[in-house]
Amino acid sequence: MAKKQSNNTHKRNIIVGQSGGPTAVINSSLAGVYKTAKERGFDTVYGMLHGIQGFLDEQYVDLSTQIHSDMDIELLKRTPSAFLGSCRFKLPEIHEDLEFYERIFQILDRLEIEAFIYIGGNDSMDTIKKLSDYAIVKGHTQKFLGVPKTIDNDLALTDHTPGFGSAAKYIAASTKEVIRDCLGLSYHKKSITILEVMGRNAGWLTGATALAKTEECEGPDLIYLPEIAFDIDKFLATVKELLEKKDTLIIAVSEGITLADGRYVCELSGDNASVDPFGHRQLQGTATYLAHFLHSELGHKTRGFEFSTLQRSASHISSRVDIDEAFMVGGAAVKAADEGDTGKMVVIDRISDDPYMSSAGIYDVHRIANNERFVPREWVNEDGNYVTEEFINYVEPLIQGDYQPFMVNGLPQHLVLDQNKIKQP
Amino acid sequence: MAKKQSNNTHKRNIIVGQSGGPTAVINSSLAGVYKTAKERGFDTVYGMLHGIQGFLDEQYVDLSTQIHSDMDIELLKRTPSAFLGSCRFKLPEIHEDLEFYERIFQILDRLEIEAFIYIGGNDSMDTIKKLSDYAIVKGHTQKFLGVPKTIDNDLALTDHTPGFGSAAKYIAASTKEVIRDCLGLSYHKKSITILEVMGRNAGWLTGATALAKTEECEGPDLIYLPEIAFDIDKFLATVKELLEKKDTLIIAVSEGITLADGRYVCELSGDNASVDPFGHRQLQGTATYLAHFLHSELGHKTRGFEFSTLQRSASHISSRVDIDEAFMVGGAAVKAADEGDTGKMVVIDRISDDPYMSSAGIYDVHRIANNERFVPREWVNEDGNYVTEEFINYVEPLIQGDYQPFMVNGLPQHLVLDQNKIKQP
Repeated sequence: MAKKQSNNTHKRNIIVGQSGGPTAVINSSLAGVYKTAKERGFDTVYGMLHGIQGFLDEQYVDLSTQIHSDMDIELLKRTPSAFLGSCRFKLPEIHEDLEFYERIFQILDRLEIEAFIYIGGNDSMDTIKKLSDYAIVKGHTQKFLGVPKTIDNDLALTDHTPGFGSAAKYIAASTKEVIRDCLGLSYHKKSITILEVMGRNAGWLTGATALAKTEECEGPDLIYLPEIAFDIDKFLATVKELLEKKDTLIIAVSEGITLADGRYVCELSGDNASVDPFGHRQLQGTATYLAHFLHSELGHKTRGFEFSTLQRSASHISSRVDIDEAFMVGGAAVKAADEGDTGKMVVIDRISDDPYMSSAGIYDVHRIANNERFVPREWVNEDGNYVTEEFINYVEPLIQGDYQPFMVNGLPQHLVLDQNKIKQP
Repeated sequence: MAKKQSNNTHKRNIIVGQSGGPTAVINSSLAGVYKTAKERGFDTVYGMLHGIQGFLDEQYVDLSTQIHSDMDIELLKRTPSAFLGSCRFKLPEIHEDLEFYERIFQILDRLEIEAFIYIGGNDSMDTIKKLSDYAIVKGHTQKFLGVPKTIDNDLALTDHTPGFGSAAKYIAASTKEVIRDCLGLSYHKKSITILEVMGRNAGWLTGATALAKTEECEGPDLIYLPEIAFDIDKFLATVKELLEKKDTLIIAVSEGITLADGRYVCELSGDNASVDPFGHRQLQGTATYLAHFLHSELGHKTRGFEFSTLQRSASHISSRVDIDEAFMVGGAAVKAADEGDTGKMVVIDRISDDPYMSSAGIYDVHRIANNERFVPREWVNEDGNYVTEEFINYVEPLIQGDYQPFMVNGLPQHLVLDQNKIKQP
């Protein structure tokens, strides 16, 4: 389509922010927003620093001072965490604090913003909903669009979320390597390794450990998702039974597995053990707890293992499908705003499984906000300790392909905010 | 050189084993042994399963049933952990158990072994020393050669050990990603992240976190090696001082840092806290302990973080220099044995820093065994909380270059032992 021309009296500016826990590909969405905005003739593309929180402090940057070339765009796609900085900030209800909203729109007006794009999870979609509602009620013309992001894959209405595929790929690849490590050291000696995976309420990432089951790798032996009540006696019996058949067990558990009575497994360690030497109550890790438990019951060598924040930041082994889709939904949000949409979130629709194809769709954000999406019961086996073929078929396309990191002096290079180019308010 | 021909009456066989904690490149050494042995006209190349321990159970495999092509050789270079399986097994002193040694040489004679190659760390070099001593005393003609291996880089006489470069690369790349993650979430809020790195007595890997300091990354703020006594009061004062200047601190510590009185820092948590809910005494992680300590003293958000066994098994981001050198020393051991050497370990000599060049040298194993090599005091700053430019210049060449993983269905493929081809004794 022809680029729209700006005239001298009215600027067509756009602003984009990043919010919530970062992912390996949230910056690919930012790259998609920037490139598409430039292609569609927007004047200035602003980035808010640390999301809406920094925006309220008038912390923003003209992205053309940061992204100078297509090479920078490619580098941004390979940079983990939030390039612009992120925040965890929930907007007040509109009726609770009108002044708050007026302040936001004053800044938007002053910057001549036509479209506001927010890349984030459930809370961010709540932000889009409130701002677009307020704009409509008050007659403001700015458009508000949400771009999904979360490694947890727990947003409703989208087939999956950008960030999930890369986290799943990192977890599956690391699980393969950990399994090799465990088997290499095992000789006539039983050992149990428990891998703790992120996703407090939704088991998508924990289930992704099943992708480590390949032609040359057995994968984990047991997988426990938070959606299914964890029965520790049944767990012990299952482990005992498996140990009669094999020496080395690898078990994946979600950090959020809970007992039938609603208590987290990591709370089971009791008051004494969960108080640190300084008297603070600490929730012990789920994997560590279960490793202690099994060691106590069975006496074998056990090890608990957390994948930690590398699950969301290991961009050196991100998925090409994921990076491309993250870029696509960023661009689609700009296109939607440019064509007059507001109060919507871009989603990923799965067009086909074989070959895998996807496209960007769009939904009213009122239908999305604050709904968590869980692994369906029928995608977990009857015993509740492994995912089914359907689960694997769903995830597998999302970890395919690579963007080779740009290696400089032996390490992946990142694009990092040039602080000298940030105008202070 | 011309290939030696075997005749029908006497086989020229060779056997290779892997021992100790695995690395990302120990299989590249195995590949180097196999390829060089074939090129030099050895008949059968046996692999002992789980090192000398499996060998004593007559567990071995003809490697030609496992490695079918140059493609398999390349895949082996990209496979972490010990392809043949590893063990932790220290041979008795010769005078303590002559029968033990006789049994080993009976098996060697029956398999018509001419050369015995052992890939491992200090304990493995001890094995080479004892077996070659015994052979000389008893008039056996087999040659015994050691190939160095350890991520800890603590072997004497070699400039560095195969496995160290890849572990350093994984740690430095992950540290960069963790730093991006921490900074992305930090906004007017102080936070401290403590990274715990392997290397109980030697700080080579902990120091390698300094490589994360690049043109676009500040790197860690403080680095504490086990070679220097840890002063917790001074540590607290340094952290307080830094927090006046910046919000986000990243601190790398060795798992083995100790106080001046010799106690491990991870022992400081006291009896109560280090007893798990089942009454077992557990050493709490060093990073977790220090995170609790700082949180207690300063009140800021703190997080402890362990890199875990991925430090030794993350072959998906291994160093090309490391893989090539691991291959080289494997081949050099075969060459040395073929030319009549015994009781020696191959080492890596650094020929030049700029450009980096290395070659394989060879040392009498009696000079090597059971000597640990530490980071020199002058490669740590005066305050004992960062490494110097000399340290960085030493490590940097060792993390350069990549072997792209062979990706199958989105994940790195490995070469795995075909159990069906293993002859049972």
